Amino acid sequence: MQQAARAAHSVSFVSSAEPTPLRRPRADRARQVADVLRHQIHAGAYETGLPTEQALAAEFFVSRNTIREALAVLKTEGLIDRGRKVGTHVAVRKYDHGLDALVGLKETFKDYGDVRNEVRAVLHLAAPPAVARRLGLEPGEKVVFIERLRYLGELPLSLDLTYLAPDIGAEVLRHPLETNDVFALIEQVSGQRLGAATLALEAVSADPHSAATLQVPDGAALLMLERLTSLDDGRPVDLEYIRMRGDRITMRGSLIRSQP
Amino acid sequence: MQQAARAAHSVSFVSSAEPTPLRRPRADRARQVADVLRHQIHAGAYETGLPTEQALAAEFFVSRNTIREALAVLKTEGLIDRGRKVGTHVAVRKYDHGLDALVGLKETFKDYGDVRNEVRAVLHLAAPPAVARRLGLEPGEKVVFIERLRYLGELPLSLDLTYLAPDIGAEVLRHPLETNDVFALIEQVSGQRLGAATLALEAVSADPHSAATLQVPDGAALLMLERLTSLDDGRPVDLEYIRMRGDRITMRGSLIRSQP
Repeated sequence: MQQAARAAHSVSFVSSAEPTPLRRPRADRARQVADVLRHQIHAGAYETGLPTEQALAAEFFVSRNTIREALAVLKTEGLIDRGRKVGTHVAVRKYDHGLDALVGLKETFKDYGDVRNEVRAVLHLAAPPAVARRLGLEPGEKVVFIERLRYLGELPLSLDLTYLAPDIGAEVLRHPLETNDVFALIEQVSGQRLGAATLALEAVSADPHSAATLQVPDGAALLMLERLTSLDDGRPVDLEYIRMRGDRITMRGSLIRSQP
Repeated sequence: MQQAARAAHSVSFVSSAEPTPLRRPRADRARQVADVLRHQIHAGAYETGLPTEQALAAEFFVSRNTIREALAVLKTEGLIDRGRKVGTHVAVRKYDHGLDALVGLKETFKDYGDVRNEVRAVLHLAAPPAVARRLGLEPGEKVVFIERLRYLGELPLSLDLTYLAPDIGAEVLRHPLETNDVFALIEQVSGQRLGAATLALEAVSADPHSAATLQVPDGAALLMLERLTSLDDGRPVDLEYIRMRGDRITMRGSLIRSQP
């Protein structure tokens, strides 16, 4: 196996790049394998379990030790479980959330199961200046604040903090928040389609309280989404701060090259 | 202050939602403040330091204890430093990377400083089946693999693993990889604009070796981007796995609501 691995990697010396090491550190090769395996797992290639170390070693032209280290990387991420007797299995199913379209969680996951919202808080509160400004309000004006822990079946997926413009918020609160996407309710009560949203995506380490709420270890990687959504007429009405479990959600989308 | 905080939060009892607790846990209020502050910090509102706890308490209609806990959340994320004598300062500058357009790192950050690539490996290697399939090649066909650690000035930003279709890869290697975006080189050698890309974004915990390479603590939150890019004629030529430091990069973009 080791020999096959070496033979498959011929080293190039080109003027433009540093000469690459003849023997790369195993950790580098393991990361490389882990990244491709991660994609395969998400694509559902291994639903009945991963192939043996030997089979993976042959597939990736690397040694079994490298495969073992690659699997350790994915175990660190919580993506797989390994057991001496049971082999290697996918530990959690990850769900795809679209980056391209403005779609709520319930709409997104309608084929996977029921999205249920645990409503942790509903408040009318005075908007801090930074919130007021983004919603086009005066500082201190009352906004509707909603905090929801969102589940797919029994799995907590995300913790959503939502600030709504007062008129929209008041109407939204007349409807059941446990079973509806806020996006759908906004369209229903405003009689308008949603227009555009600006968003920011970050990876953050979970603080202890957020970790406990989302049932992940302290410091676990969360995908943090901040999104300001406007109605079709351009008025911003919905400012959200969404912490998604990194081990449960992948955001997917497509891009096109902008014109020069 | 405490009284002002209470007065600003009037609790609503609506038929649709669980009655919200009269007094929410301080950690919940702290998270709420932290999220708004995070945005303010990214927007450059506090470049000379954050306001005092007292000023922030007044601004957010919460107690100083809540502000202290909110600042602890942001310290956990590595976003701010706090010192008894020096006050609270922004610890790291975060950089915005566009989600909307297919633009390389050097192009993206041209106004901030020089992007420098440390080329850690350049290999011709036999493509594992999963890589070959996505690039439209036969399993085992040779591809060009490039591993780069990318810096903005002295700051490591991301670790990029790139698989290029053999013909494009061979030509790309004739150019200096240290100072060029691969995207720009692909367009140069192919004589075509890039077309579309599909991408997946995740938050993952850094394995020890990736953490050491990117100079972050073990388990730090990384933004993991997987991107398959095609030429204008639709041929996929560039498969990348990019680990971005969560404390350094924010991905930003906009969405529009898809038609019903």
